[in-house]
Amino acid sequence: MKKFMGQNFLLDSLPAKHLYHNYAEKLPIIDYHCHLSPQEIWEDKRYETITEAWLGGDHYKWRLIRAMGYEEPFVTGDAGDREKFRAFAHALSKSIGNPLYHWAHLELKRYFGYHGVLNEETADQVFDLCNEALADPSMSARNIILRSNVRALCTTDDPVDDLIWHEKLVADDSFPVKVLPAFRPDKSLGIDKAGFASYIQTLGDVCDMKIRTMDDLKSALSKRLDFFANHGCNLSDHGLDYLVCESSAQRSCDEILAAALDGQTITQQEADQYKTDLLVFLAGEYNRRDWVMQIHFGVLRNVSSTAFKKLGPDTGFDCMGCYPGSTALASLLDRLEREGGVPKLIVYPINDMDNTALLTVLQAYQTSLPGRLQLGSAWWFNDTKTGMEKQLKDLANNGVLGNFVGMLTDSRSFLSYTRHEYFRRILCNVVGGWVENGELPWDEAWLGGIISDICFHNANQYFELYV
Amino acid sequence: MKKFMGQNFLLDSLPAKHLYHNYAEKLPIIDYHCHLSPQEIWEDKRYETITEAWLGGDHYKWRLIRAMGYEEPFVTGDAGDREKFRAFAHALSKSIGNPLYHWAHLELKRYFGYHGVLNEETADQVFDLCNEALADPSMSARNIILRSNVRALCTTDDPVDDLIWHEKLVADDSFPVKVLPAFRPDKSLGIDKAGFASYIQTLGDVCDMKIRTMDDLKSALSKRLDFFANHGCNLSDHGLDYLVCESSAQRSCDEILAAALDGQTITQQEADQYKTDLLVFLAGEYNRRDWVMQIHFGVLRNVSSTAFKKLGPDTGFDCMGCYPGSTALASLLDRLEREGGVPKLIVYPINDMDNTALLTVLQAYQTSLPGRLQLGSAWWFNDTKTGMEKQLKDLANNGVLGNFVGMLTDSRSFLSYTRHEYFRRILCNVVGGWVENGELPWDEAWLGGIISDICFHNANQYFELYV
Amino acid sequence: MKKFMGQNFLLDSLPAKHLYHNYAEKLPIIDYHCHLSPQEIWEDKRYETITEAWLGGDHYKWRLIRAMGYEEPFVTGDAGDREKFRAFAHALSKSIGNPLYHWAHLELKRYFGYHGVLNEETADQVFDLCNEALADPSMSARNIILRSNVRALCTTDDPVDDLIWHEKLVADDSFPVKVLPAFRPDKSLGIDKAGFASYIQTLGDVCDMKIRTMDDLKSALSKRLDFFANHGCNLSDHGLDYLVCESSAQRSCDEILAAALDGQTITQQEADQYKTDLLVFLAGEYNRRDWVMQIHFGVLRNVSSTAFKKLGPDTGFDCMGCYPGSTALASLLDRLEREGGVPKLIVYPINDMDNTALLTVLQAYQTSLPGRLQLGSAWWFNDTKTGMEKQLKDLANNGVLGNFVGMLTDSRSFLSYTRHEYFRRILCNVVGGWVENGELPWDEAWLGGIISDICFHNANQYFELYV
Repeated sequence: MKKFMGQNFLLDSLPAKHLYHNYAEKLPIIDYHCHLSPQEIWEDKRYETITEAWLGGDHYKWRLIRAMGYEEPFVTGDAGDREKFRAFAHALSKSIGNPLYHWAHLELKRYFGYHGVLNEETADQVFDLCNEALADPSMSARNIILRSNVRALCTTDDPVDDLIWHEKLVADDSFPVKVLPAFRPDKSLGIDKAGFASYIQTLGDVCDMKIRTMDDLKSALSKRLDFFANHGCNLSDHGLDYLVCESSAQRSCDEILAAALDGQTITQQEADQYKTDLLVFLAGEYNRRDWVMQIHFGVLRNVSSTAFKKLGPDTGFDCMGCYPGSTALASLLDRLEREGGVPKLIVYPINDMDNTALLTVLQAYQTSLPGRLQLGSAWWFNDTKTGMEKQLKDLANNGVLGNFVGMLTDSRSFLSYTRHEYFRRILCNVVGGWVENGELPWDEAWLGGIISDICFHNANQYFELYV
Repeated sequence: MKKFMGQNFLLDSLPAKHLYHNYAEKLPIIDYHCHLSPQEIWEDKRYETITEAWLGGDHYKWRLIRAMGYEEPFVTGDAGDREKFRAFAHALSKSIGNPLYHWAHLELKRYFGYHGVLNEETADQVFDLCNEALADPSMSARNIILRSNVRALCTTDDPVDDLIWHEKLVADDSFPVKVLPAFRPDKSLGIDKAGFASYIQTLGDVCDMKIRTMDDLKSALSKRLDFFANHGCNLSDHGLDYLVCESSAQRSCDEILAAALDGQTITQQEADQYKTDLLVFLAGEYNRRDWVMQIHFGVLRNVSSTAFKKLGPDTGFDCMGCYPGSTALASLLDRLEREGGVPKLIVYPINDMDNTALLTVLQAYQTSLPGRLQLGSAWWFNDTKTGMEKQLKDLANNGVLGNFVGMLTDSRSFLSYTRHEYFRRILCNVVGGWVENGELPWDEAWLGGIISDICFHNANQYFELYV
Repeated sequence: MKKFMGQNFLLDSLPAKHLYHNYAEKLPIIDYHCHLSPQEIWEDKRYETITEAWLGGDHYKWRLIRAMGYEEPFVTGDAGDREKFRAFAHALSKSIGNPLYHWAHLELKRYFGYHGVLNEETADQVFDLCNEALADPSMSARNIILRSNVRALCTTDDPVDDLIWHEKLVADDSFPVKVLPAFRPDKSLGIDKAGFASYIQTLGDVCDMKIRTMDDLKSALSKRLDFFANHGCNLSDHGLDYLVCESSAQRSCDEILAAALDGQTITQQEADQYKTDLLVFLAGEYNRRDWVMQIHFGVLRNVSSTAFKKLGPDTGFDCMGCYPGSTALASLLDRLEREGGVPKLIVYPINDMDNTALLTVLQAYQTSLPGRLQLGSAWWFNDTKTGMEKQLKDLANNGVLGNFVGMLTDSRSFLSYTRHEYFRRILCNVVGGWVENGELPWDEAWLGGIISDICFHNANQYFELYV
């Protein structure tokens, strides 16, 4: 029986142990997609309690607590921090096999030096111990990032953002971590979402122009692309309900846009055509600028209208949809190839039954760069041990695993960097398992090189960070 | 090499063995969803031969025999019992890896004391041995239930059923097992199925009323809910072709119902709207009464019209469809939350590629009770070792495994209780494997408690049986 | 740590080793579906270099090279053979976990006696060594087939083919391997594809008739079925975009055909109805003649129109679609059962999430022959270790594994026969693993028999080859 989350946690073979401890473990982190607040980094945010740090905004944890039957005061409401933490500990102690069980204990071990088990009995002790640790300056936002060995991280930013905190961070020599913005123009694409017209107004204001036509809109977005580029950005991200490639609506995109801006109803087909047109434009821009395009798709968001009214978005009411994307992706990439060129691209499906189909599409458009098109790391509901193993094996089966740009946290929390450790252990275990099983030759330098590439060097190259 | 289906069958680690033998093995069974006949329980049904017991109504076995090339006389026809049994033994001996291989041998071991292998050579010997055993009173329906350590079981009953056999069973102190009805109003929902109008006529007759409108229908169903409640029922079940949440048909539900009752054609959209309306009503009733709602969905039934004409339903001509349900489920639950409240709910998809998506929807509506909404145990075509492992891991990854209400037989046979043993071994092996692998701490009392909850206590609590 | 691809490669238990080495290893091969050129067999094709043999037409390998960032000259273009081979070796050395890693090394071991690792450092040495081996007469097409222990193989042929090379091969006593044609009428069904009208013209010419109506077309195809039958053929194959069963178009099939032949536009529904009608006719013919029908479906072909213009079909721009087929398959088989009878049938889905659903449909139409309807071996993007394990387990869970007709290469290369070895090792490992784990009794003769059946005898019987 192996020690619970000991030194060789998730490392089941000798080659896996070698690969992890000799190669993966000590490599710095490039966290190329996260939702950290640049303001909080700049201000070097501190936490009073572990409840604030863990339960302040983490909807993964909120869902577990709700599933344990606790009412909202213990989740997002006004129960005390100790009571909330107890509720979480209670939920966690029933959530065996859940990735939070490992994530939470990894964070306790790596950041708080607590190597015991968190459960209802230990909740109070762990609460006190963590709060004490958090009082130490070593647990400020910046120091957590530094001790996590992060070399670069990319936040997620709206095109209208003034990037003021990024500017300050760049100007501050005392913080050696590269903090870059990423361009996420979801609101410009969200012609079928509430608030679209007013957002386009804001975008126009930021660009000192009136946006009435597609050309106006593209011109405005181009300005913001320039602005982001001037702040070191070379990465975008898109959250799509589903992959689209639509061009058969009756009205033109200019007409559709005008209708939406005037508050008139548009059809789903019209919305899809508008999105396709804008995606094609943006992808062309990314390609021209040698940026990376990311697409996350398939989430059913805010399914409980009751909860949405009370709590707003990103509060634990998002779900996995089932929108297979290979046909639309193939059409979209074919069109890009003919029009503005296919940019560097990472596609993240929310539903991992789509992994292989999407990968086979991406492999039909590879060119000019190792791994130019990538199947993204296991995401959200698949960001689990089994989900990561599946993504790695799906990728290996139909792609070139050695070109993979690897892990990201996608997190709102400064304490999530241990997810990179989790990923690295799983990666080394998969590859080491192949060696153990005679499926790969045991050439440590070669495989160590591949592991190092996936954990650090590929991303460093692909995102042109050179950190 | 492990002994074939020995004491530690499916238990691959020391913690798995401990968890099974010290916790799971001896717990009583709550079989909260099955298709046993209450009349046969009351009458204490006896079997003359193992062919009658095994092959009298088990379409799983019929399919294997047909796939072996045998013609219908050897399946449902008039070949002799010995010949049919030989055909089954022949089919089984080619069906390695099929759950029937394990189910059949578990039943031979636990009920007939036969620890050998069933194949063409041993078929005659096993046939004789089993028939001899069946001649013993210990193998009557009631005695099989008792020696299987069943404390409670829920049958599946039509709302028009008079529950006469349930009444008799309640009145009979000599049989200590709780036998409860479950309310399955599929025929009321089946507006697009043959026989709908005549069924509604029957329902009206049973309720002493004329059903012409939705209000009439709801009133009739309410009466039957009361009647079932008076017989101890607090559980319903729905078999749906696919999950629906439709409200955009041109005609009202009253008009749709009237049309269907008059034998006019209705569209699929109208049928879906009618079903949605009735489901919302019933779910509200279940919630108000604190009943559990079960939904089984996705089966393609009676696909061979030729076989259906000859043999009728439930004879082995049902298949797995592919109707992803997360979008419809999210819409339905959102509507319930706004209207009558979300009842305790267990959702069973026939296609397990839908497990995670459905689970993520259910997790968005959890409240007030640990595990109020449940992803059901692996069902029918997934009721296999790999299917159960997948369901448990899917559940663990995105839910709270410790709240799971566990296994049911869903069977027409009194000999199927060994499927609970099969499930418990697999459950203990999954959890024990995590411990063995350092993914969980080895705290036997804690994990034994979770295992006991999943095997017995959670269901006892959830269904308010208190046996 | 196991030796890299040693004697017990992929054989993880003692029973697996016994089953492989005592039963599977030495059995001859029946390759009932491949894309070998009968002309090349007749002419006893020779290769000058390993680049010609490996990279002359293998789009699996081309995709890996492209994914490594190499431009087209190094893939299908005019770079030198040594440079192309180096590019492939480079790509392969990053493609850990990809089936090509194993396929390539198996071929190097079995045909070239090279037991080292192929990578950038060894590329030149391996290139020279292989070329030297290829210069030996033992590496001619026929000799590769012979030393691979192939007893029979079925090519893939268009109905208009004159089968001249098959005739010559039959007449040539010096080559003891049965080489049979298979009837693949995709172009007759491809009413929605470019070139349809001209193909139908050709088909008419070959049959000395004018094709204007469905009856004409069916009559022409019947003649070609006779012609193929006269050349020993009893096997067909269909490549469908998706499974169809459509009969509700406004126009009749005669009208739809006439429109297509006159170059008019037809709708997708009309195309589907036409295909359904022709499939039903052909399936009836296959059934009447006791042929086997194969259906491969779900591929998105030639997704890059840019690449298609440059390189044509089958050059690495095909992808996995997501077209679940169980509903259409059930409708189609129901119709066949009522009309012309269900023929022996093997269905291969490109997307293995569909395995179980399709299998459950096939199991509803089994009759008269063990395994009359078959879920095909893991295909194309699933022709991997994990894909084959999944297919075997899916099949075992809901079917009769012992009736499986087993592996085929589906390959254009004479060197692909090691894929049978790969399959056999995986099969023996799955079954042996069950024994090791106590899930099957260790009766070597019985299980060895099942293994032998799946590796050779079932196909020999099913395809009535009797070799």
